[in-house]
Formats: sequence, structure tokens, C-alpha cells
Amino acid sequence: MDSRGHSNGGELEAKQMDIRRLSSSRSNTQCIHKVGVPPKQNFFKEFKTRLKETFFADDPLRTFKDQSKSRKLVLGIQAIFPIFEWGRNYNLTKFRGDIVAGLTIASLCIPQDIGYAKLANLTPQYGLYSSFVPPLVYALMGSSRDIAIGPVAVVSLLLGTLLQKEIDYHTHPEEYLRLAFTATFFAGITQATLGILRLGFLIDFLSHAAIVGFMGGAAITIALQQLKGFLGIQKFTKKTDIISVMRSVFEAAHHGVSLLAPQTPHVYGVYLHTNGPLMHNKLNLMHRNFFYDLLQWNWQTIVIGVSFLSFLLFAKYIGKKNKNLFWVPAIAPLISVILSTFFVYITHADQKGVAIVKHIEKGINPLSVKQIYFTGDNLLKGFRTGTVAGMIALTEAIAIGRTFPTMKDYQLDGNKEMVALGTMNVIGSMTSCYVATGSFSRSAVNYMSGCQTAVSNIVMSCVVFLTLEFMTPLFKYTPNAILAVIIISAVINLIDIQAAILLWKIDKFDFVACLGAFFGVIFASVEIGLLIAVSISFAKILLQVTRPRVSVLGKIPRTTVYRNTQQYPEATRVSGILIVRVDSAIYFSNSNYIRERILRCLADEEEQTKKAYSPKTQFLIVEMSPVTDIDTSGIHALEELYKNLRKRDIQLVLANPGPVVIDKLHASDVANLIGEDHIFLTVAEAVSSCSPKLVEEA
Amino acid sequence: MDSRGHSNGGELEAKQMDIRRLSSSRSNTQCIHKVGVPPKQNFFKEFKTRLKETFFADDPLRTFKDQSKSRKLVLGIQAIFPIFEWGRNYNLTKFRGDIVAGLTIASLCIPQDIGYAKLANLTPQYGLYSSFVPPLVYALMGSSRDIAIGPVAVVSLLLGTLLQKEIDYHTHPEEYLRLAFTATFFAGITQATLGILRLGFLIDFLSHAAIVGFMGGAAITIALQQLKGFLGIQKFTKKTDIISVMRSVFEAAHHGVSLLAPQTPHVYGVYLHTNGPLMHNKLNLMHRNFFYDLLQWNWQTIVIGVSFLSFLLFAKYIGKKNKNLFWVPAIAPLISVILSTFFVYITHADQKGVAIVKHIEKGINPLSVKQIYFTGDNLLKGFRTGTVAGMIALTEAIAIGRTFPTMKDYQLDGNKEMVALGTMNVIGSMTSCYVATGSFSRSAVNYMSGCQTAVSNIVMSCVVFLTLEFMTPLFKYTPNAILAVIIISAVINLIDIQAAILLWKIDKFDFVACLGAFFGVIFASVEIGLLIAVSISFAKILLQVTRPRVSVLGKIPRTTVYRNTQQYPEATRVSGILIVRVDSAIYFSNSNYIRERILRCLADEEEQTKKAYSPKTQFLIVEMSPVTDIDTSGIHALEELYKNLRKRDIQLVLANPGPVVIDKLHASDVANLIGEDHIFLTVAEAVSSCSPKLVEEA
Repeated sequence: MDSRGHSNGGELEAKQMDIRRLSSSRSNTQCIHKVGVPPKQNFFKEFKTRLKETFFADDPLRTFKDQSKSRKLVLGIQAIFPIFEWGRNYNLTKFRGDIVAGLTIASLCIPQDIGYAKLANLTPQYGLYSSFVPPLVYALMGSSRDIAIGPVAVVSLLLGTLLQKEIDYHTHPEEYLRLAFTATFFAGITQATLGILRLGFLIDFLSHAAIVGFMGGAAITIALQQLKGFLGIQKFTKKTDIISVMRSVFEAAHHGVSLLAPQTPHVYGVYLHTNGPLMHNKLNLMHRNFFYDLLQWNWQTIVIGVSFLSFLLFAKYIGKKNKNLFWVPAIAPLISVILSTFFVYITHADQKGVAIVKHIEKGINPLSVKQIYFTGDNLLKGFRTGTVAGMIALTEAIAIGRTFPTMKDYQLDGNKEMVALGTMNVIGSMTSCYVATGSFSRSAVNYMSGCQTAVSNIVMSCVVFLTLEFMTPLFKYTPNAILAVIIISAVINLIDIQAAILLWKIDKFDFVACLGAFFGVIFASVEIGLLIAVSISFAKILLQVTRPRVSVLGKIPRTTVYRNTQQYPEATRVSGILIVRVDSAIYFSNSNYIRERILRCLADEEEQTKKAYSPKTQFLIVEMSPVTDIDTSGIHALEELYKNLRKRDIQLVLANPGPVVIDKLHASDVANLIGEDHIFLTVAEAVSSCSPKLVEEA
Repeated sequence: MDSRGHSNGGELEAKQMDIRRLSSSRSNTQCIHKVGVPPKQNFFKEFKTRLKETFFADDPLRTFKDQSKSRKLVLGIQAIFPIFEWGRNYNLTKFRGDIVAGLTIASLCIPQDIGYAKLANLTPQYGLYSSFVPPLVYALMGSSRDIAIGPVAVVSLLLGTLLQKEIDYHTHPEEYLRLAFTATFFAGITQATLGILRLGFLIDFLSHAAIVGFMGGAAITIALQQLKGFLGIQKFTKKTDIISVMRSVFEAAHHGVSLLAPQTPHVYGVYLHTNGPLMHNKLNLMHRNFFYDLLQWNWQTIVIGVSFLSFLLFAKYIGKKNKNLFWVPAIAPLISVILSTFFVYITHADQKGVAIVKHIEKGINPLSVKQIYFTGDNLLKGFRTGTVAGMIALTEAIAIGRTFPTMKDYQLDGNKEMVALGTMNVIGSMTSCYVATGSFSRSAVNYMSGCQTAVSNIVMSCVVFLTLEFMTPLFKYTPNAILAVIIISAVINLIDIQAAILLWKIDKFDFVACLGAFFGVIFASVEIGLLIAVSISFAKILLQVTRPRVSVLGKIPRTTVYRNTQQYPEATRVSGILIVRVDSAIYFSNSNYIRERILRCLADEEEQTKKAYSPKTQFLIVEMSPVTDIDTSGIHALEELYKNLRKRDIQLVLANPGPVVIDKLHASDVANLIGEDHIFLTVAEAVSSCSPKLVEEA
């Protein structure tokens, strides 16, 4: 009762003070300003702008504004087929750059393609097919100048594992292939749809941190998969997690026992005479494992693998050391293919258990439209696999599309890119290609070898065409070990330890997300890794939205600036006034927390004032600058806060509410509840209008 | 090339200028301040505080600080059983209040309970059971003084529909009952667990808007369900959506045909003679429908229903008109029960097809521990149903727990409340109760009839106890129509049109969420409605996080304040300098958008400057006050922005980065890239340090 009466008195006083203040505002050094209310715009206009911001943030039709009809048509065609735009001022110097780059990436992609096809459980030629048609399509529709299109390791692995879960490629190779095309088709559809519906931003939800972890994990998984070719193991697990791979690598040995049982006795019969039985058993065991491993792990293969791996790594090293020698690692793979193939051919190593490619289908892509499942259960399977593979393919392509333009300073429309990539894969799926996208490593080479336009892709696909037409027989004696080695040396680049360290330095939470994805991929499977990555990313957003920061502000000496007292220890509190800043939009997800948090700040303050016998807090100023938006729950929270403070005879004051907030405060009539004269432009003005009252009441 | 050289020149100049500025800062009217870097705290400390903020935001152990061991024990007991806290200073005056309130809500709850039990497809006594044990448990453990515990309409309906989907209560009443107890058990477990794990904030994710819509929809669904009792229909659909309910209401009539076929002919034999065959057929049809509907919809029932419904609504109206007569609507239900029962008893209306309660089990709750499924498939079903029902029950209870304390000014610990409610339901499930929670309507009555403490709940449960022991036979002749009517008049309050209008006024998006939930419940089912509500709520959060606002700032005349030019049209741009403010934390989900958005602002600016022949933009000041946090993707975006601007010979300047941001800028070394001397405390200082350079270059 008493307090209420008192408070009313205070209120009345406040009113008078305000009037006085306003009148004397001229004489004041800093005059008081009203908080602006943005011009009321009708709902549909507002809705339209919001929609535009969400889906057409990059304003794609900007160029079309006030142009003639015919011009618009031309622009439209150019928008869909950028080649007509940059093609017009294409010249010989540019072509020189492109042809060099094209040949370089071709030499790099041909062996890689053959290997990647294996990752997707497909026969080699499909890798080459996917480097022939898609690049041509992209060259017409894509707007990135540096991207190198083709199959990539991670997507191939992902596709392989996902499809394998649906159909076994050993028992049903035909269905498997058809499902692969179906998946590719839907991958393309997904990509194109995302682009057309302007939903490109969806892939932003896979955070940088998550991608780093995922790529690293995928790289290691891929490298492990190569142990099959590298060690020349026949029977190999279809799982991708490190444990089952390692098991199958060593069980391979024991598996050998059954095969080699007959001829084993005499192998170490020698020891039976030279040593005692005990000793013999030990040695026996030791040697058995040793021999069996050796006999199972084909040693000739291992020799070839090790020697060429060291060669490739050395080439990489040179390339790193001297940027002008970037072409060394670029052509090293082709060289090692040629050398090893020749070597096997003359030594007949293939008869000594060195696995070789044996056969690559000759001729260019056959049509595969009829092989795509457009009906039945397999349609669904293909769709599921396709969407996932398509999204991952996008992330890699878009990442590239973001990296190089910033170097060469040209803009890319993410959504347009997606349409291009999508169309490319759809057409690909109809011409016996599997999911293709932009390759990190090859794009980098493409960029360094001075490509100017997408023509480098055309050059590459021409080379691939020639290979398919004439050179496939030459790969007969290429040892699988070489392909394994090439893949290993390629995916090593995907393990970005620097980035991981940076993550740790900058943001611990990101680092956790990164680790989660990494271990998820290694120990569970590619898709589990993805799942973990995405869910951690979301968890982070939600956490931020649920538990925003609320900081106490103080006045920085010799200024009218109020800042976080934790960040600026020199900032001093104003006695009798508590100033807090809410560092987030106020939503249903955090409104109650914010209300309680502010009240807690007040409680702490009052404890201190009690200790210090300093005047009781009479004003609570809430700095609203960071509060970019507020919803009904938020408004209610403010209302409750106001009532709660009123009971304690404390006046709620707002400083600098944003356009949206002030708008809603008026709409909900809370502005009047708090009182127009308690909403200020800046904290400084709020304080200066509160302090005189303090004096009077003291 | 040229531009690059130039820019370097500019940079050099800038450096010199900065030095000059710093030296002359004393003489300046406003001196320049460094941006504070918060004291570096180690990772684990940081992690700990973050954790505390997330789960122990309300600092529950505050009271335990620096207390003696014995005191701590007492406090601990009081924390778990608040009754020992408020019980100590309980007195007669308080008791007087409580007993009145207790009797009032008892009179209200008894008829409601019987009806609500029907909603959950249970026999009446289980409703009464649930108003006997749970209130007692809550009185011991709960800390809300105004909440009235017992079964509520929405939860009963939800439980009924969910359980019906698992087991049909007609064919397997026994299993159905057991499953109901199992669900109740797990509902309790869920609630208690959420409380113990301090995950109370999870229910905040069901936004106010969503709840308004959901409650409204549920109310209408419940009202529709009452048509069965209201019209005295025997065969009624088990679905809850409006369409199938309406169908069954009218199909009920046609169903009648078979029953009444024999006696129909003579009914309108009259017409056969008076009219021609055509005419006859028309009338025939007309009358048939008319008669049949009447014969099927028991008219006596309807009469009773209509008359008492109008009575109840009138009572409500009186209660609304005059707050002192709040008890009129409170006791009206009981009165109508008594009257109608008596009426049926003397008129033997039950023999004329007026459905009556017939029989309520006598005696208090039998134990039901053994009936709970702790194993097998039903365990899972019970768990699924229980968690959902438990969450919804919580939202209602917590909403109440938030409303009344603000009126009487006492604090509630949400998590502690959850533990209390959870325990209550667990114990309930073992004593033949189904999910109970705080009832909006009864709590309001409880509050208005002057309850002081949870003792009012004890009083209520005593009355219920007496009812169970002695008065159940009196309900034999109570017509179901009355129960239907009571429920209808009770759930009407849940339809909060005012709130919906407010939603529309304040936040259109919230309104959409509200509508979504509403129509979801009405046209699909309760859980679909829930799903829609939750997903819309999430979509809103994500949208906000993906597409934050980026606004252009201008200087407000006669101040050093820079504000959004849309909100403050009088704010003036500074020529040669573009000032933008990012209104959100910069995360992977929006970093690219923000970067592109800022560049777009720049593009617009440059278009205008071209038109106006005003000097070219040389500085881009990014006001970072609202940027409360930044992750690695955000840092990368800033870096790219910087590089991009450098190419155009524009200097990036940051104003007032927060503690977290500045910390990460340093960690990632971007601070050095941008240059310490381009990071300022306020926009004003940034501008004042940029402008001299502009002059020089002009």
C-alpha cells in the first residue's frame, strides 16, 4: 500500500521532471530526441519485402530493371547460358590459358576418375563418362571460371556406401547400376530445385566447422578403403568404418590359412629340425602370421604401391615448395600410371598376383534414360540416396564457387550455380554418368595453371573423349595399386589440420562440431557423420537463441558512452540506476529467461547496494540496441517485467528500441504502459533524465 | 594495378593520420578510446559458466551459500517439500481463505472430473481418483499457491486419442486402462526428469502463439466430442477431426433407418391420399429425414442439454459482469448436476432414452502399481504417449505457474515445479489416477475465491474423498448431457480470441503459427496440430537466424548518435562513408548472407553517389553492437569482406565489437588484418577519424 502510494508520487514527480527536462532541453549540452517510429507499412508490403529478403536476397533481377523487351530476352538467355555472355569477348590469349589448364586437369582427372568409380562400386568407364558430359553441360550453364567438374572422392564414397545399403553390387550389378543412375537423376533434380526455389541458403546450415570435420573423416575413410588395392587383398569388407576395415585387413591373413593350408607344412619344415618343439611353436606361430600376411598381402603390389606413393608425395612436396612447379604434382599421377602400366606389362607382374584394371569399356557414354527407375520401390531408394548425395555434392561445389571468385573478384549467384549443377547431373544421369560436381583439388590446379573461363572444362572433356575412344586398351595393365595410391595422395589434401587448429582457437563449440563429424565418419559411417555434424550445428543455433547474454553496462569515463562492464573494467556504474543490455532478439524461446536474468541482475545489484549502503536502485534502464526483433512472448515478458518492477517501486526505462521493437511496443500498447517519456534514444539521455529525479528523492 | 597502388598510398596515409589523430586526441572535444579486450579466461572456466547459464540460469543454490551444515539440511528439505517452509507461518485467517476456495473448486471439479474421464475413454471414477491423490502430493511438494490440481480437458482428450490409436478401449478395456496408467507413469517420469536435468527451458520452445492456437483448437474439438452426449447419439466416431465428427453426427440419423423401418409407413400414410405421388415423394423424403433425425437424436436429452447450457452460460455472464459474483459460475455446474439428476429421477427420463451415468465405482483409489506395463511392447507405447501428454500437461501447469505469481509477486522455480508435478503423476499412476496437472479455469476460480496456500488443494481432495466414499450412488441418474454441457461451458474459456487478435496486431508470423496449430487440431488431430505448432515455431527461429536485418545508419542532427535511416528519416548520411549495422550474431547460417547483403548496400550507395556526383565511398563502417557472437564462418566472412573491399579501394572499419567478437577477431588474427586502428569504440569516433582523410584525398 504505502509503497504503491509512494511510487505513484514518484511517477507524478517523474512526469513533472520530464516536462521540465523537455523545456530545458535547449539549454542542455545534449538535447533529448524522441525515438523514431518507422512509417507504418501495410501487412502485404511488409510480407513481400520479408519474402524477397529470404529468397531473393541477392536481387537476381537487378540487371533486368528498366530494359527493353528484346534486351530482356537476351539478358534472360545470357542468365541461363552465361557462355553467351563471356563467350562474346573470348579471345586467343584466354584460349591459350584455358588449353594449358584443360590439359593439366585432364591428365589429373583420368586416373582419378578410374579410381573414384571404384569408390562408387562402379566399373572404371563410368568415372570417365562422368568427366565427359557434365563438364560440357556446365561450360554452357555455369558461371564459375575456375571450377573443374567431374566425379569427386567424397561423393563417390557416399554414393557407394548409400547404394550398397540398398542393393548389393556383387549379387545384383545390373540393378545397382540402374539405382546409381536413378540416384544421380534425383541428385540433379534436388540441386536444380533448390536453385529454382531459391533455397540455396539451406546448404549454409552445414557449417564450415562441420564440413572440415566431415571432409577430414571422409578422406581417412577413403584412404583406408584404398588398403584393398594397396595391399592387393581379394576379400574386403563393404563397411567403411575404421574398425571393420582394419579387421578385414588383418582377417584377410587368417582367411589365407584355409587357402594355403596344403602347401604350408614344408614352408617352415626347416624349423621342425633346427629347433625344439616349444621354440618351434613360437616361431611357427610368428612365421605363420608373417608368411600368411605376406602371402595374402601381395608383396609385389605393396612394392609398386609404396614406391609410387613416395613418388607422388615427393611431387606434392615440390609443388608446395615452389609454386611455379605446380604442374609437377598435377601430371605426376599420369606419369606414374604410364610407368607402372609399362612396368607391369614387361614384368608380367599381373601373373604374380598384382591386380590390374584388366578392361575398360571402349567408346563414349551410352544413353541410360531407360535404365533410370521412374517407378516402384527403387524410385524411392534412388530418391533418398540422390538427395543426400546431391546436397553434399552441392556443398563442395558451392565452397569452390565461393573461394575462387573472391580471388579473381567476380560475383557468383549461388542459386544459378545450383541450377547449372542440377541440370548437368540430370543430363548426366541420362548418359551413363554418376553424380559429378566441382573437385577441390582439380579446381585448384585449374586455377594455378591459369585457366580463364569454363573452356578449360571443355578441353578436359575433349581429352577424356579421346581417351574413351582410343586409349582405354592402354589401361589394361594398369595396376589397381596405382589408382589406390593416386586416390590416397589426392584425398590427403582434404585433411585440413590448420583449419581444425583455427577452429579450436576461435570457437570451441565449432571445434566440437568438427570432431563430432570427423569421428562420426571414421567410426560409424559417412551418413552418421553428416547427421552428427548437422545436428550439432543446429544445437548451437538453438542454444544461442535460448540463452542470450544479458550484460550490465557502465559509463566509460570522459564520454557519454555506456559499455559492458566486463569488457571495459574502467566503466563506472551510476548509483541508483541499473543499466542492462539484452544481446539478442527477444523470442518465445528466450523471453522468460531474459526476464528472469534481468531480475537476477537487479537482485545482485541490490545485494551490493545493501553492502555499500549506497542509494537503492530506482531505475532499470534496458539498452535495446541489440534487440533486433521481439514477438508476442517477448512483449508479454516485458510487460511482466514492468509490473514486477513497479511492485518494487522501480521504474523501467528503455533505451534505443529498434524499428521493429518500437513498432510492436506501440501495437501492443506496452509503450503507453511503460510511458512514452521512459523510452529514450540513447542510454546517456535515459540516464541524464533519471539522475535529477534521484537527486530530488534523495 | 593502378587502383592497388593508389590504395596502398591511401593506407599509408591512413596510418599517418591515425598517428596524428591519437596524438591530438587530447585536444579533440571527444577523445578516442581503445576497444576493450576482455580478460582472457581459460577454456574450462568459460565452459563452466556457459553450462551454468544454460542449466542453472536461475541459480537455485543461491540460498544455500555460506550456511551451516544443519541449516543446509533444513533448507534442502524445505526445497523439496516447500510445505515445511510456508507451513510454519500458516494461520487461521489463511485457513479461512483456503477452505472457501477449496470447497468452491471441489464443487467445480467433481462434475468436470466425471466428464473429463470420458474424454480419456475411462470410466467416471478415474476422473475423481485423479482429483484425490495428486492434489495431496502437490500440496507437499509444489510451491505455487494458486494452482488447482486435477485432470484437465485438453490432456484428457490428448491422452484419449493417443491411447485409442494404440489399443481400442471398446474391445480391450483392461489393456487400455493398464496402458493409461503406464502412460501416466511415464508422463510423470518425463516431467520429473526434465526438472531434475534442469531442462525446463525446453517447454519454452512451444511458443505462446502456438499454445493459443492449440488450446483454441482443442477446445472446439472437445466441444464437438460433447455432441455425442448432448444429442444422445449411441454410435459416435472415435476420430476427433471436425469432418468425421460431423459426418457421424448426421450419419447417426441414417443409421436410424434400419431401426425405424417397420413403424415408418403409417406415420405419413396421410400424404399418400392427400397428394399426388410426386408431391408425396418430396414431402415423404422431407418428413423422413425430419422424423428420423428427431428419433435418433434423443429430443429429451437435447431439451435438458439446451436448458442447462443456457443456465451455465448465463451464470458465466453474471460472473463476468460482477467480479464479486465469481462464485455463481463456480457452483453453477454442481447445481445443474443436482437439479438435472433429481429431474431425471422423478420423470424416469432415463427410460425415454436419456443416457445417464448409471454407475460410479464406490470407494477411494485402488492401487495400480501391478497394472503398469514395465516390459514388452506396451512399455514403448505407454512411453511414447506419456512423454507427449506429460509435455502438454507441463505447458499448462507452467503457464499457470507463471501467471499467478506475477499477480501475488512471488517467484517460482520452473524446474522444481516440474519435479513436483512429475512425482505427483508417478504416484498417481500407482494409485489408479491418470495424468493430472494444473487447470486454467479452476486455478482462476481458486485465485478469485481467495486461496492463500496449497491447502485449498488439500480441502478439495478431502471433498473428493468424501464424494468417493459416500456420494457416488447419487450420480446414478445424472444425465450424460449435463456432463457434456459442463465440459462445453468449461472449455469455452480456452478459446482466447482476444489473444489471437493481439497476435495479429503484434506479430503476423506468430498469428500464422497460431492458425496453423488451430486448424491442425480441428481438421487433422491433436498431435498433428502440436506438430505443426512446434515446427512453425522452429521455422521462425531458423528464419531469423538465416536472414538477419542489415540496416544503413545516418547521423542524427545535433548529436553524435548514428541510427537506422529508415527509423529516423532525419538522420543524414556522411558523404564518402557508408555505415551499416548488422542486427544479429554472425553464424555459419547467415555469414554469407550478411557478407553479400553488406556488399549490396555498398552497391546501392555507389549507384546513388554516381547519380549525385558526390564523392566516392572510401570507408565502410560496420556497427557491431548487435553482433553478440561470431563463429569461424563469420570470421571468414569478415575476412572475405575485407579483401573484397580492399580490391575496390575501400577501407573496412569496425565500430564497437562486443567482448566475444573482439576476442575472436584477435584469436583469428583478423583484427591485425583490418588493423587495430580501424576498430573503434563508437561509430562517432570511427567517422571522426575517417573524415579528415576524406578531406585530404578530396
